[in-house]
Amino acid sequence: MVQTTQIVLASRPSGMPAEQNFRTETVELPAPGAGEALLQTLYLSLDPYMRGRMSDAPSYAPPVRIGQPMVGATVSRVLESTDPALAPGDTVLGYGGWRSHSVEPLRQLRKLDATVAPVTTALGVLGMPGFTAYSGLLTIGRPQPGETVVVAAATGPVGSAVGQIAKIKGAHTVGIAGGPKKVALLKDRFGFDIALDHRAPDFADRLAAATPDGIDVYFENVGGAVFDAVLPRLNPFARIPVCGLVADYNATELPPGPDRLGRFMSTVLRKSLTVRGFIQSEFAPDQFGDFLSEMGGWIRDGRVHYLEDIVDGLEHAVEAFGGLLVGKNLGKLIVEVAD
Amino acid sequence: MVQTTQIVLASRPSGMPAEQNFRTETVELPAPGAGEALLQTLYLSLDPYMRGRMSDAPSYAPPVRIGQPMVGATVSRVLESTDPALAPGDTVLGYGGWRSHSVEPLRQLRKLDATVAPVTTALGVLGMPGFTAYSGLLTIGRPQPGETVVVAAATGPVGSAVGQIAKIKGAHTVGIAGGPKKVALLKDRFGFDIALDHRAPDFADRLAAATPDGIDVYFENVGGAVFDAVLPRLNPFARIPVCGLVADYNATELPPGPDRLGRFMSTVLRKSLTVRGFIQSEFAPDQFGDFLSEMGGWIRDGRVHYLEDIVDGLEHAVEAFGGLLVGKNLGKLIVEVAD
Repeated sequence: MVQTTQIVLASRPSGMPAEQNFRTETVELPAPGAGEALLQTLYLSLDPYMRGRMSDAPSYAPPVRIGQPMVGATVSRVLESTDPALAPGDTVLGYGGWRSHSVEPLRQLRKLDATVAPVTTALGVLGMPGFTAYSGLLTIGRPQPGETVVVAAATGPVGSAVGQIAKIKGAHTVGIAGGPKKVALLKDRFGFDIALDHRAPDFADRLAAATPDGIDVYFENVGGAVFDAVLPRLNPFARIPVCGLVADYNATELPPGPDRLGRFMSTVLRKSLTVRGFIQSEFAPDQFGDFLSEMGGWIRDGRVHYLEDIVDGLEHAVEAFGGLLVGKNLGKLIVEVAD
Repeated sequence: MVQTTQIVLASRPSGMPAEQNFRTETVELPAPGAGEALLQTLYLSLDPYMRGRMSDAPSYAPPVRIGQPMVGATVSRVLESTDPALAPGDTVLGYGGWRSHSVEPLRQLRKLDATVAPVTTALGVLGMPGFTAYSGLLTIGRPQPGETVVVAAATGPVGSAVGQIAKIKGAHTVGIAGGPKKVALLKDRFGFDIALDHRAPDFADRLAAATPDGIDVYFENVGGAVFDAVLPRLNPFARIPVCGLVADYNATELPPGPDRLGRFMSTVLRKSLTVRGFIQSEFAPDQFGDFLSEMGGWIRDGRVHYLEDIVDGLEHAVEAFGGLLVGKNLGKLIVEVAD
């Protein structure tokens, strides 16, 4: 019998999740059945979408039930397997959740090769966040050479990939982040043409100055106030892929006015904008293979860089997740659960 | 010398346009030069977009300048022409504006054949409004057989065409209008599967009951409160072509809260919605020919019906236009300027 230590959802957070919304428990795992494997979690990915899973508002995926372990992508070591293609000791990408051990269907596991790229990249630049950037930018944003692409949360795993892929496609790139440390990374590490701090009191003026030819693609992965400054700079026929609204995830009721929806829709009309929400899974069947090979090549060629923020120990997952929602992390947030 | 009586913009309206924002004057027209024709206006089209031309807010088209005649599509009679292809007495579609006579470039005139369809249809079902419906619905909305299409202002020239084309494409159609007279027309004349009155106190409940399988296409041509009832009914991957927001055209400042923008963007994300503003001119080069032939066929076959509201006399144009903005007209609003 193998035991797993796991973090379960004890109650639904109202607003920002707190420690009391979770409970750590140790339970026994069933033995893996046919088509299953027993895994030990090495790394757990923490991502903004998890805030949605803590709520029972209608969404594209069902919420985590109260008393159930939080879900999440993991890099894990195979302990037992019923498939000869996966041997004990192999490292796989799975969906083990906030747990030390898991039993998972073999079909949702993907074997990782540490000689190709560090295994943690399967949770970031070569995983869901990187693919979110790749598929949303190229399929919805479609930046053309010379166009201007703007992205916020630009040191994060999605935003940094958006900027670098846009640059590879010949676009002028503007990255937005909060605070001097992140802003410095935008140019130094991720090669944005322009780096802006959204906390600057004259942020809207700076954005205007940084986009003399307007904005053709705004990759929306944060929500909130940045969008207000972007809206008047959008060019006719601009595209807005919407993949995340972390600034709004904790909202418990409609915020006070004025009501900006009418002005927004009027801008959509006057500028013939395309606004398109998406979840990367929509594009995965068609594009994930191309993504792995193309993005992997860009990383090897030094054209795409990434940054990981690795927190030690599952017991710090809740605190780290809270920090993610307010931008405390620097790069892709990962919890090292075992080594 | 030919004189024209014309309605000029005397001042920019704040909110609803009123008589004092306009002035009627009679001026002499220059003789038509090479490549021009002298025309007598028979019919003037009144359309919601004209409200935008009265304002100097940035838009897809420059505003009418103070002291200049209001613009607008017209059906006119050729009085003098420098092109043998257009003879005096011919009837043409032009862009003469709110005037009794005009001199226009020949290249912006299209000869009309009254034996094919009544010439007024060139301002409505076979003109810009009909093409707005056709191009926006088929290119952006892309209704599939069995899907549900909802449109408001559904007795108007755009909405009624949207509903009928959607029906031809095999969709379940829900038309929305204001007041029992218009609602009766939705089923009787335009063949909507369901007709709803947005003034009903339980409108949102009725819309929910009318769309048991959700909404796949919401053709947004009115703005305002209908959208609030539509939003929770939208299916994943629903499409929202946005061609008009007449309910918001008179807004002078942001309305009071709560602020609905965050909830809207969150819905865009959770449901992978496509929201796309458009002006029909974007699609005209590629599709207008197909539209004329296909829509003309549907009219002749009795599959598409239309309704015109013809007001007598240019002196009633301002009053009629004000009525258009609050939905007083019944069908495509046209001013008969001469006969």
